[in-house]
Amino acid sequence: MKRIAIDMDEVISAFSLKCLQLFNADCQTKYTLANLHGKLLTELDQRFHEKVNDYLAEESFFLNLDVMEGSQEALRRLSKQYDIFIVTAAMEFPASLAPKYQWLKKHFPFLNEKHFVFCGDKSIICADYLIDDTPKNLDTFKGEGLLFSAPHNVNNNAYVRLNNWKEVEQYFL
Amino acid sequence: MKRIAIDMDEVISAFSLKCLQLFNADCQTKYTLANLHGKLLTELDQRFHEKVNDYLAEESFFLNLDVMEGSQEALRRLSKQYDIFIVTAAMEFPASLAPKYQWLKKHFPFLNEKHFVFCGDKSIICADYLIDDTPKNLDTFKGEGLLFSAPHNVNNNAYVRLNNWKEVEQYFL
Repeated sequence: MKRIAIDMDEVISAFSLKCLQLFNADCQTKYTLANLHGKLLTELDQRFHEKVNDYLAEESFFLNLDVMEGSQEALRRLSKQYDIFIVTAAMEFPASLAPKYQWLKKHFPFLNEKHFVFCGDKSIICADYLIDDTPKNLDTFKGEGLLFSAPHNVNNNAYVRLNNWKEVEQYFL
Repeated sequence: MKRIAIDMDEVISAFSLKCLQLFNADCQTKYTLANLHGKLLTELDQRFHEKVNDYLAEESFFLNLDVMEGSQEALRRLSKQYDIFIVTAAMEFPASLAPKYQWLKKHFPFLNEKHFVFCGDKSIICADYLIDDTPKNLDTFKGEGLLFSAPHNVNNNAYVRLNNWKEVEQYFL
């Protein structure tokens, strides 16, 4: 069985949306995902530099992220034909370790927890495919890197792009 | 730089020793590491089946493990010539995630936390070497597997064996 490694934040969990919601409430702004087109959060508003660290230090942040549309159904189907590993950068925010695990068990109960990988540098991952929204994670990956569309990466053309979970399914099934 | 992945329990942390200490206090036994020669804990005494799960569910268990003799000095030296990754199976005991991170930061402050990997199935690891006390982790590893001696694995002859941290240094430096 071929192995697909799948990133968490912004691929199966709606990370940026939650950041924008907290920031809007905090700073009386009205940012939407459309404002992130081609930009990182800190490029949209410099105040994100300090704010985001505060948000991510709270366990509740990761527990309460929304699930990306279509990801549950797609992964349920893909897991019948591929070995699915969830691979997430968690070491910069150790408070995220336990809630990330709980979130995965809650929203993806059909996945084997032995296939969860919490790491920092994704070049350690050995898999046939990596689906990730961050180009630098794909740059050092030795298998086939697939870029999952997110507002911040719209201008990257270096990888095969999958715009949503329907396209992921079409690519693999 | 070549990359060495290093297991945690029984390689840099004295996992079995702590299990024996807790069990001895619990069940009025007097087991020592010598009793584990060629055996797993559950082969030494069947009551470990239920007891170990209780021990590992406590955050304090992983926080208070002793450091394996010579591992700090050896890793400090090795880290100048090799990329060191710490790779530990943590997903079966999610209560271990945060304390394992804290333990590593306390006892190995010179290692980069982006090189910590908490996983379940170590076949996901891409490295040149893996030092592990569990033969089944080496069986699926694609690089060079090195067996770190532990009482339970004394009868395994399938891998190059490193008996202690002095021998690890001699092998690599």
